[in-house]
Amino acid sequence: MNIKEHSIEELQKLAEEIREKILLTVSHNGGHLSSTMGATDLIIAMHRVFDVTKDPFIFDVSHQAYAHKLLTDRWDSFDTLRTFGGISGYTKPKESQYDYYVAGHSSTSISLAVGAAKAIALKGEDRIPVAFIGDGSMSAGMVYEALNELGDRKYPVVIILNDNEMSIAKPIGAISKLLSQTMAGSFYQKFKQKVEKALDHLPEGATYMAKRFEESFKLITPGIMFEEMGIEYIGPVDGHNIEALIETFEVAKKLKKPVIVHAQTTKGKGYEIAEGTKEHWHGVGAFDLETGKASKKSSAKSATQIYSETLVEMADNDEKIVGVTAAMPSGTGLSAAMEKYPKRFWDVAIAEQHAVTSMGPLAKEGFKPFCTIYSTFLQRGYDQVIHDICLMDLGVAFAIDRAGIVGEDGETHQGTFDVSYLRAIPNMTLLAPYNESSMKAAMAFAKEYERPCAFRYPRGTFLAPDSSCEPYELGKSVMLQEGDELLFIGYGNGVGRALLTAEMMEEKAGILDLRFVKPLDTQMLSALSSKYKKWYVFSDSAAKGGVGSALLEFLSQENISDISLTTFEYDDAFITHGSTKLVEESLGLLPEQLAARINQDLRTDR
Amino acid sequence: MNIKEHSIEELQKLAEEIREKILLTVSHNGGHLSSTMGATDLIIAMHRVFDVTKDPFIFDVSHQAYAHKLLTDRWDSFDTLRTFGGISGYTKPKESQYDYYVAGHSSTSISLAVGAAKAIALKGEDRIPVAFIGDGSMSAGMVYEALNELGDRKYPVVIILNDNEMSIAKPIGAISKLLSQTMAGSFYQKFKQKVEKALDHLPEGATYMAKRFEESFKLITPGIMFEEMGIEYIGPVDGHNIEALIETFEVAKKLKKPVIVHAQTTKGKGYEIAEGTKEHWHGVGAFDLETGKASKKSSAKSATQIYSETLVEMADNDEKIVGVTAAMPSGTGLSAAMEKYPKRFWDVAIAEQHAVTSMGPLAKEGFKPFCTIYSTFLQRGYDQVIHDICLMDLGVAFAIDRAGIVGEDGETHQGTFDVSYLRAIPNMTLLAPYNESSMKAAMAFAKEYERPCAFRYPRGTFLAPDSSCEPYELGKSVMLQEGDELLFIGYGNGVGRALLTAEMMEEKAGILDLRFVKPLDTQMLSALSSKYKKWYVFSDSAAKGGVGSALLEFLSQENISDISLTTFEYDDAFITHGSTKLVEESLGLLPEQLAARINQDLRTDR
Repeated sequence: MNIKEHSIEELQKLAEEIREKILLTVSHNGGHLSSTMGATDLIIAMHRVFDVTKDPFIFDVSHQAYAHKLLTDRWDSFDTLRTFGGISGYTKPKESQYDYYVAGHSSTSISLAVGAAKAIALKGEDRIPVAFIGDGSMSAGMVYEALNELGDRKYPVVIILNDNEMSIAKPIGAISKLLSQTMAGSFYQKFKQKVEKALDHLPEGATYMAKRFEESFKLITPGIMFEEMGIEYIGPVDGHNIEALIETFEVAKKLKKPVIVHAQTTKGKGYEIAEGTKEHWHGVGAFDLETGKASKKSSAKSATQIYSETLVEMADNDEKIVGVTAAMPSGTGLSAAMEKYPKRFWDVAIAEQHAVTSMGPLAKEGFKPFCTIYSTFLQRGYDQVIHDICLMDLGVAFAIDRAGIVGEDGETHQGTFDVSYLRAIPNMTLLAPYNESSMKAAMAFAKEYERPCAFRYPRGTFLAPDSSCEPYELGKSVMLQEGDELLFIGYGNGVGRALLTAEMMEEKAGILDLRFVKPLDTQMLSALSSKYKKWYVFSDSAAKGGVGSALLEFLSQENISDISLTTFEYDDAFITHGSTKLVEESLGLLPEQLAARINQDLRTDR
Repeated sequence: MNIKEHSIEELQKLAEEIREKILLTVSHNGGHLSSTMGATDLIIAMHRVFDVTKDPFIFDVSHQAYAHKLLTDRWDSFDTLRTFGGISGYTKPKESQYDYYVAGHSSTSISLAVGAAKAIALKGEDRIPVAFIGDGSMSAGMVYEALNELGDRKYPVVIILNDNEMSIAKPIGAISKLLSQTMAGSFYQKFKQKVEKALDHLPEGATYMAKRFEESFKLITPGIMFEEMGIEYIGPVDGHNIEALIETFEVAKKLKKPVIVHAQTTKGKGYEIAEGTKEHWHGVGAFDLETGKASKKSSAKSATQIYSETLVEMADNDEKIVGVTAAMPSGTGLSAAMEKYPKRFWDVAIAEQHAVTSMGPLAKEGFKPFCTIYSTFLQRGYDQVIHDICLMDLGVAFAIDRAGIVGEDGETHQGTFDVSYLRAIPNMTLLAPYNESSMKAAMAFAKEYERPCAFRYPRGTFLAPDSSCEPYELGKSVMLQEGDELLFIGYGNGVGRALLTAEMMEEKAGILDLRFVKPLDTQMLSALSSKYKKWYVFSDSAAKGGVGSALLEFLSQENISDISLTTFEYDDAFITHGSTKLVEESLGLLPEQLAARINQDLRTDR
């Protein structure tokens, strides 16, 4: 599509077509809707002014970049969005030469732009990095670290700040306030008051002069914070006026300095039902275009929902329960507790480092914090888990949602590494429930446990149906079923996978609900090692350093050498997007596939 | 010490005594000098105005808190500073009830203060958290994340900003400039110019009025950035005027709002040789008080020095070599390359997230970045290693300094976890050299390797002497010595430990230089498994998920069950401070101890 030669009217028409295409596709496939609809005009103007064949286009989080995909080489394949083998919901260089970088985690774009600018300067090329970032992404510390260097070293970089006055959730924090203040002029109002106070000391008739002063102040107040950091600021501009945007971007491009263009957009632009509304329309499943209603609702309760309800119940009964989310109140289910107990549950914006560390003193002061973060995002708070929680040996409970394969979001979001990276940390206890009752029991354990612990649970529903459940005891596993020779060891959702696999086996397998991967139930495992010589490990986690690895360490320490252990954890590769079932099938992890593999093993052995 | 009743003169005298005590102790034991000397008056005023028995005193990084230690309960034991079993160089609640929190990594204090403020608000208590933070710590994203919430939610918190116009190294970044601007008044100058421009449009004789305006502006311009974030700002104040500081802190305390007191101090205050000088006097070894010269110099070349020299040589010959440090130019040895090639090597301030991510595009654009970060600090960039480097499969080389036990800095700084947390990441290659020649060879490999890799090396000198060395080949180990039955497998500095241990053994051990823990040399290991049945693993890394664990995973996958494997990695506990040798002795990791353990094993077996 050569939009370099289109008239403004043609571009406006194109924007409508793109929005229709996005709307239609997302209503079928699910995906990110409101941000990507709102960003369409900005992205068209960006493609008009900058050159995607040479300028690095860097989309922050990149869930808003659908228009970019449609403008480059993915119009025809766009109906495969987020499906297995289809177009990714995020930018991905392997998918298109026009995608400069991968992004699924927020707030990396300005660092990437600084890196690209350094490369361009060293090569002496005439290219300019363009970072496209939403206001929600501005809360993470990375942005500030990058602006700090950028404002100092003054590389030519254009930052397009797409401000729809909302991050995923309600905007949190001073920066968010600052952005709306500059628009509403309230900062200017405060400033004016101070000037008027000064005027009190002046001779009469100074009103006219005061007015003139005010006008000049007005020009310098918006964006003063960015300017203070050494970044030029232009804005706010109307993010749906393509003509004005093109002009503004042309100015920004010519400055050859770091510059932020602050554009205001309406989220959901072009789809009345979604326009302006908040979190609900950020990421959606398939829905009916006429009504906006979800096409199908899952009847079973998701792990998140169980967490959410149980946390509120616990908070009802114990005022020491507190909690935090980093900009994912609805995704993590913390919203219910936040609504009921706004003084005890906090959304701290996209700020995982701060979320983790700020819970430490609460534990020290006698509260019981539930730090509720997706597996993939807790990677952002890793040092803080080590240095600010575990080194202090404080009773913070990490509720790790989205552990395992997350489906359509794909490789940037898979919750695969947490067992490996948390297991190495001293003072940390790791546990995992596998159905509704065990989730409640695990949370009850976490509530009472006075040292650091983390429990993980999957996106969506547990594989296993509910069942009665004994209370969790530190480092104690539970034998769910005795067998003959094979032992299936399940951790978390892996227990459900083990149960389903066992049903498909000819031979009866023993099934252990491991419960704790740290500390291990060494007594139980020693006892089982005499009876069961073939161990199969089921866990939705990376194999390297994972649950199987923990068991191997145990067997080695105990000098138990007559056990063969096979782990059905994830191999050492990033895992693609698509429905969880299709992705698992591609990895050979469906229960029928696992049963076939085990039967094959057994036949080979005999 | 009851400083609540001292006169100002007595407090000034106390400050001198404290500085003398610090100077004397550090000249003997080594430690942090210039920051802690400069912070003494501030800490005295802090103790006078706030109540250490109830107000959380939160020292950022806490290497500047020696005066706090001396003012509480550690005057008599202070001469054991940083020695094994002695006083820690950082705040540590286990050491004293007056240390509220652990801190060795920077920029956590404001998050901690926010957490403490939340707890205090929920309890309805009359206490106020006081965060004490240096200007160098202000560059990390965590600070911004915490200020963002603090400025929004307005908890009463006093932040004492100890501004000595220098972080550890030369101050980097826009924030640092901003601070000096407010002091030098250059921001004010810019502002004045704009006002004067506006005055051009006014009738004559307005000069007098302009002056009055200027005066009122002057009151509101410094610290405008903090005020924009919703934090009150007081300053700058003289950080050595105890009387003025007490008055200022009293004001700040009464505000019951978040407030930053910006105090200017002279680093090294009270020791002429160190005053005002930069990085050199930040952290020092023992030195002669009269001359300021180091008491002893190590004759052997440190791993860092080898890295530093080799990197410059490589950069001489290849203009594609670039690199980054996060505020540790001297500590990591990157300073030599930075001085010679200032356009290709960058210090991005304390900002590990940004440091990692910004190197991605440089690799994508054809450069070869060496991302040079201590093991313990790379924890801060963990998500970025996964999401911005490995997912993109880019040729960034991570040079991991301070891998293993770091000696006197102790538990916050031990480089123990990197093998575990990096091994789980797909596309990552992990290697480690063990002496000077192998370091050069490992770096030559990293330079040519086009995918992500990380090589680790210890603080100080390698255990092994130099020797000739074959080039590194991906995933290839090297057999250094054949033996009878025992196989010693060394990784990195562990090879040196294996060699020293082997010398003390009665039986001749085979010695393998593993070189790569990912990917493993499966061919070599398979072959060795037929001959050697007792494997001993030597590596300066955590056992959980570490090198031994990688080998167990290999043996399990290959169905090799007749090997007994013992790993001499670190047990699952945080490791204390003290000289590396004493610490290793306490862990039973000295070669003579290991030899004794192995001989004991062998005797038991027979």
